[in-house]
Amino acid sequence: MSFTKKLRLAWATSQSLVCVGLDPELPKLPERFRDRPDGIFAFHKAIVDATHDIVCAYKPQYAHHAAHGAIDQLHAIIDYIHDRYPNVPVILDAKRGDMGNTAMYLAKEAFEGFKADAVTVSPYLGTDAIEPFTKYVDRGTILLCRTSNPGAADLQELLVDGEPLYMKVARLAAAKWNANSNVSLVVGATAPKVIADVRAAVGDMPLLVPGVGAQGGDVADAVAAGRDRNGAGLMISASRSVLYASNGDDFAHAARGAVEQMMADGARTS
Amino acid sequence: MSFTKKLRLAWATSQSLVCVGLDPELPKLPERFRDRPDGIFAFHKAIVDATHDIVCAYKPQYAHHAAHGAIDQLHAIIDYIHDRYPNVPVILDAKRGDMGNTAMYLAKEAFEGFKADAVTVSPYLGTDAIEPFTKYVDRGTILLCRTSNPGAADLQELLVDGEPLYMKVARLAAAKWNANSNVSLVVGATAPKVIADVRAAVGDMPLLVPGVGAQGGDVADAVAAGRDRNGAGLMISASRSVLYASNGDDFAHAARGAVEQMMADGARTS
Repeated sequence: MSFTKKLRLAWATSQSLVCVGLDPELPKLPERFRDRPDGIFAFHKAIVDATHDIVCAYKPQYAHHAAHGAIDQLHAIIDYIHDRYPNVPVILDAKRGDMGNTAMYLAKEAFEGFKADAVTVSPYLGTDAIEPFTKYVDRGTILLCRTSNPGAADLQELLVDGEPLYMKVARLAAAKWNANSNVSLVVGATAPKVIADVRAAVGDMPLLVPGVGAQGGDVADAVAAGRDRNGAGLMISASRSVLYASNGDDFAHAARGAVEQMMADGARTS
Repeated sequence: MSFTKKLRLAWATSQSLVCVGLDPELPKLPERFRDRPDGIFAFHKAIVDATHDIVCAYKPQYAHHAAHGAIDQLHAIIDYIHDRYPNVPVILDAKRGDMGNTAMYLAKEAFEGFKADAVTVSPYLGTDAIEPFTKYVDRGTILLCRTSNPGAADLQELLVDGEPLYMKVARLAAAKWNANSNVSLVVGATAPKVIADVRAAVGDMPLLVPGVGAQGGDVADAVAAGRDRNGAGLMISASRSVLYASNGDDFAHAARGAVEQMMADGARTS
């Protein structure tokens, strides 16, 4: 099943717009996971088991796993989700971006090596850095458009033909890069007007929206600004605020509570 | 010794502006390296042994190694160069780009994990994605500015205040991101005027120039456009045209010949 179809089914089934990011930070894990060689996997497995029916996607983070020497555990959690919860799409958050055959290698790594349903990609290098990803027609390519970090404005808000660069990225995505209907965009929750402007430019293209929770974006505002015509269209992503809602024995229960709170705050289909 | 100082000494000692990219492609290796578990390392070792005195840097490619399941061999070749030819800087070509603590993890991976002297980084996310790299003051952060691939124009040549976006990146690099004097820029060889414009904007900042050799850029034109006031300032990068100059038993000799030809064509200090 294609990423886009899997995502639409997950929205329909779970009624949730919440995407849980799996960004391991060893010092924040409950103590019993810190010294196990498979501790990161075991922690994420418990989070996934506790939340799989109330999320629309999981988004494991490549760099956080790499920094902990835990690439094998990244493989393991993706395999686990595919095997146990095959209807929940997995997004590899790796922010790839390279040219020519290198891009082809990166796409192969993400989609064949990690078996991710989708991967995040930087648009800075342009078409030939993006096409090796999008030509995997059944997988998703999620392009950075307007990110949620403070430095995003440095380049992404520079004015091109009277509008910010990120709008140019959104328009290129809709007009040029989405020929296989498998492109999505990253648009941070920190400015709802940005989400609304991008939504207006890209039709029903899915938007991955980080920046709520620890980064301070408001869920209800983001959802109001970004829902598509089907009342879905958004992956509202939170990591730390869900994973580390508690570091006691109730961490998985607390994680589920944090996702439910996001749904209560508005991160649900309408 | 800092990356910048190491690079300046390498230019002075070798008189070479050639940077050799280590981009393994298994089918192109001489046959005897293809089936050895350490074949990629052994091949690169032979290339390095044959060229170390006539290059200013090596640039191993992260994705090419990852795609071959050869991250251990990437570690091994970097360690080998540091150990055997400690005056030659090693640039990890990984085109990283992420925010906040993820960027910190990526910088740590590049500089502490791989022990690279420098790493390539995308500027699309802005200051807080760049600073975790540049705060390693003795290491180099090499920002993508105007890349050499055909799709580069899609974003990088969009006009901002009447000049292309890549010039804005060059100006931000010079004015804002180079406080520790450890930033360099990637500027493709495919348009010498671009190199000249960037050089005019960034003083003596080192420029990494891919796009000669297999990608068709002219060495003499690139060097004429980009030398700094000391007659150096450039890392003219070639990969395939050096590594695979021959796939017979003479491959290392042929690689040296290809580097010498680049120097004869103009890739040398003046």
